Amino acid sequence: MTSSSNTLDSESEHIIIGIDPGTRVTGYGVIALSGRKMKTLDYGCIRPPPDALLSDRYLVIFESLEELINTHKPTVMAIETPFVSKNIQSALKLGTAQGVAIMGAKRKQIKVFGYSPRAVKCSIVGTGKASKEQLQGAVARYLNLSELPRPYDAADALAIALCHIQGMQNSLSRYLKNEI
Amino acid sequence: MTSSSNTLDSESEHIIIGIDPGTRVTGYGVIALSGRKMKTLDYGCIRPPPDALLSDRYLVIFESLEELINTHKPTVMAIETPFVSKNIQSALKLGTAQGVAIMGAKRKQIKVFGYSPRAVKCSIVGTGKASKEQLQGAVARYLNLSELPRPYDAADALAIALCHIQGMQNSLSRYLKNEI
Repeated sequence: MTSSSNTLDSESEHIIIGIDPGTRVTGYGVIALSGRKMKTLDYGCIRPPPDALLSDRYLVIFESLEELINTHKPTVMAIETPFVSKNIQSALKLGTAQGVAIMGAKRKQIKVFGYSPRAVKCSIVGTGKASKEQLQGAVARYLNLSELPRPYDAADALAIALCHIQGMQNSLSRYLKNEI
Repeated sequence: MTSSSNTLDSESEHIIIGIDPGTRVTGYGVIALSGRKMKTLDYGCIRPPPDALLSDRYLVIFESLEELINTHKPTVMAIETPFVSKNIQSALKLGTAQGVAIMGAKRKQIKVFGYSPRAVKCSIVGTGKASKEQLQGAVARYLNLSELPRPYDAADALAIALCHIQGMQNSLSRYLKNEI
């Protein structure tokens, strides 16, 4: 019997790329999910030259993501979609970085799901007020990593991917509302 | 004698695409500049389906721009970069639409210049407090259009392109600081 399209096929492999977008540092983390088994494929940061034009920094983010997508062939992108920001100017820049990352995925027909920082912390640590260190430690435990994932932006990106995986595993219909 | 690279070559043709970015409506206007002669090549709006996913709307903007770029082969993109916004959420969305448009240009090695709404109004109407109707009328006069460019988003996009052209023509070095 084949599984129906709206249940999680436990045999099929899902590859989730988590993205913590930013114009200075964009964190990424790639996790393969096979049944209930998870494997960390890659994580790290994209750091465009800080003195480059903003538009050139966006291009670096876009092209680096394109390379990651070509390498790991993710089936889903999970991205942090903050609901708060220090000010309008930083919200505009953050939105731009987000747009560039979303575009990188959609161009390859990859679905994009958005999660707030609070939702990610709740899902991984159990409290929306978790510190960056707590989140980093929880990510290492979940993924059985031999060392803490560094820097924080990469740990955050893995946490975002994990948050999506939890949604897929625990509440098949509810996580779908996070598609953006 | 050939002109040096840092002066405006009056014989060469420049094609400027102006963009007024938005997730619901993205205005565009394309102007060819040959010496001091201007010709309106195209203007209009990109309206992604309002009930589509946000990411699909971004994809519509990106792909529509790609088509416009392939058709008109602009040498420069001039884009509205607002410094104010109603709230953080709308700033985030606006930033995302901006990122998508910038990426469309940078992928084709097109330089991007940013202008605030106030700078555009000052440059075209002479006051930063000009109404949409005033801006629309001024654009029609500048470009010798037989009718008012509609809707306002398209008129705005033409105004942004005109603002860049004025900078190129009047202050060769100053406009360069608007490259983003």
